[in-house]
Amino acid sequence: MPVVDIHTHVYPPAYHRLLTTRSHVPYIFNDSTTSTDRLVILPAEDTASTSRGRPIGPEYYDITRKLQFMNDHAIDISVISLANPWLDWLPSSEALSTARLINDDVNATCASHPGRLFAFGTLPLSAPAEEIVAEVERLATMKFMRGVIIGTSGLGQGLDDPALDPVWEALQRTGQVVFLHPHYGLPTSLYGPRASEYGHVLPLALGFPLETTIAVTRMLLSGVWDRWTGLKVLIAHSGGTLPFLAGRIESCIEHDGHLKEEGKVEGRRKVWDVLKKNIYLDAVIYADVGLKAAIEASGSDRLLFGTDHPFFPPLDEEDNGEWLSVKLNSEAVKSALGDDEAQQKAIMGGNAVDILRLTL
Amino acid sequence: MPVVDIHTHVYPPAYHRLLTTRSHVPYIFNDSTTSTDRLVILPAEDTASTSRGRPIGPEYYDITRKLQFMNDHAIDISVISLANPWLDWLPSSEALSTARLINDDVNATCASHPGRLFAFGTLPLSAPAEEIVAEVERLATMKFMRGVIIGTSGLGQGLDDPALDPVWEALQRTGQVVFLHPHYGLPTSLYGPRASEYGHVLPLALGFPLETTIAVTRMLLSGVWDRWTGLKVLIAHSGGTLPFLAGRIESCIEHDGHLKEEGKVEGRRKVWDVLKKNIYLDAVIYADVGLKAAIEASGSDRLLFGTDHPFFPPLDEEDNGEWLSVKLNSEAVKSALGDDEAQQKAIMGGNAVDILRLTL
Repeated sequence: MPVVDIHTHVYPPAYHRLLTTRSHVPYIFNDSTTSTDRLVILPAEDTASTSRGRPIGPEYYDITRKLQFMNDHAIDISVISLANPWLDWLPSSEALSTARLINDDVNATCASHPGRLFAFGTLPLSAPAEEIVAEVERLATMKFMRGVIIGTSGLGQGLDDPALDPVWEALQRTGQVVFLHPHYGLPTSLYGPRASEYGHVLPLALGFPLETTIAVTRMLLSGVWDRWTGLKVLIAHSGGTLPFLAGRIESCIEHDGHLKEEGKVEGRRKVWDVLKKNIYLDAVIYADVGLKAAIEASGSDRLLFGTDHPFFPPLDEEDNGEWLSVKLNSEAVKSALGDDEAQQKAIMGGNAVDILRLTL
Repeated sequence: MPVVDIHTHVYPPAYHRLLTTRSHVPYIFNDSTTSTDRLVILPAEDTASTSRGRPIGPEYYDITRKLQFMNDHAIDISVISLANPWLDWLPSSEALSTARLINDDVNATCASHPGRLFAFGTLPLSAPAEEIVAEVERLATMKFMRGVIIGTSGLGQGLDDPALDPVWEALQRTGQVVFLHPHYGLPTSLYGPRASEYGHVLPLALGFPLETTIAVTRMLLSGVWDRWTGLKVLIAHSGGTLPFLAGRIESCIEHDGHLKEEGKVEGRRKVWDVLKKNIYLDAVIYADVGLKAAIEASGSDRLLFGTDHPFFPPLDEEDNGEWLSVKLNSEAVKSALGDDEAQQKAIMGGNAVDILRLTL
């Protein structure tokens, strides 16, 4: 059974070039004091005086580094995806052509390493709906594409926006998986006046999964999965915090007088049903406590191993063997499933092969 | 073994009167169309045109209603606490006298029903630190008080504010438990333009636990538990989402270049250690999936049953037997612990008796 990494990002050369031409988030700048390129993708990083952005080297855009990382960690197949912030910020008129350029670029990269690389495509979400749908349909015909990665903003008003219906319809119709990934985090004011003392911990550890949880709950409440009962969504970071909060979400719906008056409590699909039929969760959670909850919520046949490469590299330069971030995630799978090797192997790769049809 | 409810709120008469004299959040107003009093405690509720606030009847301030609820649900002991938003909003000069008034009121109520009621006190957090400390010390001498309930704002700058150190010191020294409870939620902008269609679900189901998670993570990162290794904090709603995110929080700390440069990664107490030695979690989570994660994170000897009464009443008036919200939580305890009746009883009451010394 192969080991498959379904959460692993690239900045393909076309996208990398685009970011270097920009001077506000998202952008890449050259830090003159160290002569290194730094990548700034979050507003919170841009204002941090001591740690503005992060170093960006070839591990972000040179696919041979990805393959080396895969070899170092015995990963047989990677399903690569464009790293955030994707294309949400592009002017409408440039969105489709840029998405096509990047998707072609990524598909060609996969073709150069057949059997080792598949990909999630990116969508021109700032373009008119018909152009987004056209790209969804084109992606379905591309040999190595297996779905799309999207953020939480949708067309600019969130994933509970009914204007997204044609996009959901096209994704369901073409059987592609939506990889839902955070990017915007939460307003930095929530982290208080001492946030900068904590490095990037609050936006990364909390902002990302909390943003994800809000986005997916809004999808649920707006009835996306009541309308598109076959829509498959893979949620990053084991669902943000959805498995843990699912009971509270259900209870709050059942106890909401306004929803009851509007007739929105009865007849809807419950979060537990959606978790077991529409949602997949990656296993990027760094501990067995959370992973067990994710497995309980969705089932061990719906969890998929991931690394978040090239993010969270080891801090010690001498540590060029196994990455701690990868080790935490693979050990969590072993620990959560005890002696059940079949389920371990399913999460480490078998589920991804089945769900994403990773055969040539 | 008694059944103990440690998450159950009151608006004692003195506090109720205070809220009726106000005209902005928090306040109680009389809805002329229905001739009923309505309570508005969240800014998001105040702007919702269709569901402004919630009805507030005697179940909020008449203790005989609490005792009836306890009898209906076979709850032997309740550890009552002032409902949010507590006293954070009071002018500094009025804070101490108001806190004393309310704490005396609550303690007297407990004295009227010896053996059935204990309480968490409230602190005058807008007062000078020495007045807060004085009230902490006075609470420690009051017969039915077993700790304090606090929100996430602290003295106005969050619970990672070093100005809180004298308060933590006094709480640790007097061995009182801090019941950390959300109130402010998250900015409504995060819920998007369709939030009002979802009733109160997003602020209650997500805003509360996410606010809590941010607050407790800020406490951890600022080293509160490195300085006050004996400080005991009971976190509402099973820790917000802390048990689920603990692995990600630890990993983000271990991978943060800025924290490493500052020497803040080594030597600190890890979240897992704090979860097992300083943190208690209530079992107000409405499903076994999350409860199991909470038990895994902190241990079944650190989970405490609660109801959140009088919030989340049944919506159907004819349903005046067991409340659904209570049933969901008590069934989660049974389901999470399978056939282990001893552990079930510990969570349902035994742990609270031990931890909060619920004897006369």
